[in-house]
Amino acid sequence: MYTHKSGSERQTQRTQQSVSQGSESIQALLHLERNSGTPLYRQISQGMREAILSGALAEGSRLPTERALAQVLHVNRTTIMNAYHELSSEGLIEGHVGRGTLVKRSYVGQDEDYVDQEMPSWLFGLAAGEDAVLGEDARLLNEQVLTEEHAEYGEDGEQRNRTAVGKYAAQRAVISLAQSTPAADLLPVELVRTVVDAGLDRAREEALGFCPVEGAHNLRRTIAARMRQRGVNVDARNILVLSGSTQGLGLIGRFLLTSGDEVVVEVPTYLGAIQTMRALGARVIGIPVDREGMRVDLLESVLARRQPRFIYTLPTFQNPTGVVLSPERRRHLLQLSRRYQVPILEDDPYGELYFTADAPQPLKAQDTHGNVLYLSTYSKLLAPGLRVAWLAAPETVVERLALHKQVFDLNTNALGQWIVNEMLHRDEFELYLRTLRQSYKHKLELMLTAIQNYWPATVSIQPPTGGMHLWCRLPGTMRARALLREAAREQVTFVIGEPFHVDGGGHHYIRLSFAAVSDEEITAGIQRIGIAMQRLLTQQQPDNGQARPSERLPVI
Amino acid sequence: MYTHKSGSERQTQRTQQSVSQGSESIQALLHLERNSGTPLYRQISQGMREAILSGALAEGSRLPTERALAQVLHVNRTTIMNAYHELSSEGLIEGHVGRGTLVKRSYVGQDEDYVDQEMPSWLFGLAAGEDAVLGEDARLLNEQVLTEEHAEYGEDGEQRNRTAVGKYAAQRAVISLAQSTPAADLLPVELVRTVVDAGLDRAREEALGFCPVEGAHNLRRTIAARMRQRGVNVDARNILVLSGSTQGLGLIGRFLLTSGDEVVVEVPTYLGAIQTMRALGARVIGIPVDREGMRVDLLESVLARRQPRFIYTLPTFQNPTGVVLSPERRRHLLQLSRRYQVPILEDDPYGELYFTADAPQPLKAQDTHGNVLYLSTYSKLLAPGLRVAWLAAPETVVERLALHKQVFDLNTNALGQWIVNEMLHRDEFELYLRTLRQSYKHKLELMLTAIQNYWPATVSIQPPTGGMHLWCRLPGTMRARALLREAAREQVTFVIGEPFHVDGGGHHYIRLSFAAVSDEEITAGIQRIGIAMQRLLTQQQPDNGQARPSERLPVI
Repeated sequence: MYTHKSGSERQTQRTQQSVSQGSESIQALLHLERNSGTPLYRQISQGMREAILSGALAEGSRLPTERALAQVLHVNRTTIMNAYHELSSEGLIEGHVGRGTLVKRSYVGQDEDYVDQEMPSWLFGLAAGEDAVLGEDARLLNEQVLTEEHAEYGEDGEQRNRTAVGKYAAQRAVISLAQSTPAADLLPVELVRTVVDAGLDRAREEALGFCPVEGAHNLRRTIAARMRQRGVNVDARNILVLSGSTQGLGLIGRFLLTSGDEVVVEVPTYLGAIQTMRALGARVIGIPVDREGMRVDLLESVLARRQPRFIYTLPTFQNPTGVVLSPERRRHLLQLSRRYQVPILEDDPYGELYFTADAPQPLKAQDTHGNVLYLSTYSKLLAPGLRVAWLAAPETVVERLALHKQVFDLNTNALGQWIVNEMLHRDEFELYLRTLRQSYKHKLELMLTAIQNYWPATVSIQPPTGGMHLWCRLPGTMRARALLREAAREQVTFVIGEPFHVDGGGHHYIRLSFAAVSDEEITAGIQRIGIAMQRLLTQQQPDNGQARPSERLPVI
Repeated sequence: MYTHKSGSERQTQRTQQSVSQGSESIQALLHLERNSGTPLYRQISQGMREAILSGALAEGSRLPTERALAQVLHVNRTTIMNAYHELSSEGLIEGHVGRGTLVKRSYVGQDEDYVDQEMPSWLFGLAAGEDAVLGEDARLLNEQVLTEEHAEYGEDGEQRNRTAVGKYAAQRAVISLAQSTPAADLLPVELVRTVVDAGLDRAREEALGFCPVEGAHNLRRTIAARMRQRGVNVDARNILVLSGSTQGLGLIGRFLLTSGDEVVVEVPTYLGAIQTMRALGARVIGIPVDREGMRVDLLESVLARRQPRFIYTLPTFQNPTGVVLSPERRRHLLQLSRRYQVPILEDDPYGELYFTADAPQPLKAQDTHGNVLYLSTYSKLLAPGLRVAWLAAPETVVERLALHKQVFDLNTNALGQWIVNEMLHRDEFELYLRTLRQSYKHKLELMLTAIQNYWPATVSIQPPTGGMHLWCRLPGTMRARALLREAAREQVTFVIGEPFHVDGGGHHYIRLSFAAVSDEEITAGIQRIGIAMQRLLTQQQPDNGQARPSERLPVI
């Protein structure tokens, strides 16, 4: 049975993680049947996969060499090589020069010590508490992560950012392909002005007074109606209006999690979600994403042996990969959720930003058992400045979370709610949405063309059919961090893959956002990144050998 | 030394609270000096006060009778009577018919069990966690507390409230003196429309885009400048913009508190603050408020013997009493905070709503050591629907809390921040503020006149010099709950005193809000309450003896 571990126990566990797994202990985990019809390498990879996902093979532990394991199992070395290759391509194991093959770590520690000498004296002594840890964790993330959402301002009134990339972005002429925000010139300014002009006088109390914790009733009704159009069977009582998706993540996390509990996320996934869950003390289990979305086939071992509190997924136009979870996997995911009674938190900020004829349905549309908690926001569709998002969930969950919200937030700003509701009812709104979709589709196409023109063909890309992001696998062993440094010299920026990965991976990936930039910036930005890539590719020839020792290499 | 107690330990402690304190154990706590010049009753009350506030005399424990204690201490019974009388008037002890004299309880338990049969199955088993406790706590408060801020709506679109009073308020013709909100006809609708019309186009990204976690820089600067005008030495770096004061309370609570920690609050105090702190697992120590604000003289014993994490105070136009902390007590409070290194959380939603010539300064104006965290909001001054509040604090605290805010909220709505900032810079704003102050002053005077005309002279009131509330001591043994019931029959409502009291007191008090109601409603409302009072006073004559057994009576 799974038991909670305290911070110090976890610490101990972490320091022990480099323990070797002998060939015999691996053998004990496997039950090979030579006449089963399933190839032996498959049986081996399957057995080891389950052992890794269930924790029987600890993260960071060293696996036997191919030769040693082949000997003990009485199989060819090629069989083991194939099995390891499969596990490696799934992101479960990786090779380290000088250290052999290790089970990948999916948890990143948050037990850093921290003492700040500039604190008022009554703040001393708090450093060891949860809050100091959170502070440090968030601080580390801020340093690592290169996003637009963590800007701050100096006393001089000039914008400056905490992060290196932010700093570049604040300079003139820098092109940012990092920002996951709507295009400034598409912000519905006229719509907001019209709404305020036409209705504020009449709606003075609705728009400027207090409003219920659960959200303005009119807006809850409108959101429910719009969700029914997308196939989700909900009414106003199922809707909890939120001050942003982040608030929803926090409320659900506090509601479902105790520190030390486990949560399943996709690898890669939205970094803000990782941050919020880690701040609540959650241990995050990563399931890889491929071209059809989350590898739901890998999920069952986790659910069967561990007790994650919920499964966090972005099934539609996933952030950062842009992929859509396939219909078959959606069915399978819902089945698993039902069978193991683990709820799904569906995060769907981009679902309405589709570029093809068929509008995707939320996963929740197929949820007949109330196992999906659905989260979405108007920050991407209308304007981040309105700060209006929502949760669709069973009424009893809405009621419970509303109590939390009342105690820590009271309510979401009534003005934003009123404006959103008014906008959603105006004829101009559908036109506005169509324009938005066309514009983003056009920008994506521009970006793809520019990539074809200016980047080496060895970059691997799967063009998304909606959303705001393009996820790129860099050529060969090129590292995203190195490219970011070179790109900065060319006055262009983006987000590197690492912060989206709870397993420490993503070194060879970058995320480009095409929504917030102009046509000219897209072409110029891609061209500049292409120059940076070329420079790296040229440099890498002689440097290759020297750079290796500190890098992780693919297994085999 | 103080050590944290777990929930179950606390439970045990609570069930033991009716233990008697023998005269001998009291004697051991006292060191009487007959020739010291301090009267003996003073020495006794002083010794017992310190014992109560430091926890040496447990809450709820029974004190010896006057006769028994007098015998052991070799003093006159009158001496003990005087000492008990003093402690009783300070709210530290109270008499119960049939149970003697007890040390008042200042903690209210939150260990209620809770199981909800309508939950999805994956929610079972969570009932015992913190969240279920919070849920239950908040639910209990909602049932007990009669405020306007917890409204909810039914599927039928009709507003209904969770609370009895809310229900009355939703009916037509009911006059609510409960609502602590600005007057609807004074909401700055024109100002908002003008601001949006004149500037939204130019400020599209500032108003509708993402904004920094710490708040829009322009607004932070404006708020800092306005605070400097009120004598507080801060700049933009000291300002953290919040989505309401409640968020500030939650952030500070999470930052400074671990479950089981103690916090000092005033008795009575803002009930939302009690709710948020309790939800974080805080144990709340109450210090009585009199006509000059918090009894700071009683605070030192608490600070000397216990380790509260902070002192929560509303020094200016306190909610619910309306009192202003006297200059001398302000100095003393700051001294104690410095000496014992316990920070002060100053909550100041009403400071700018003064009715006299001299604008009160925040407590923080005299804070030379960065020990005051200052919290205020534009919900009362401008409009609740904007949901813009702020914290002024040492920069290091702002930075730490911003990390928390980022993880759980990301940022406050940019549109509201931009509107507030624009409004604060317009010439119309000062005029608007003057109108607001004059209007509320006028409404208060109307209310006082009506009280003189329609209420028995035995009601005790101290008219405030600012804010939104009038705090009333009902005649004799009249209970607020009984009056609320009678008043509901007359179609008028208000907030009873109990929820503002962490010590279980307040039975004979009610809070009237004069801001949100019209002149006519004020006069009619007071008249109706007067009728309800008369009915109760007439009923009480014969009932007196019967009603007693379940009531707490003043000591002696």
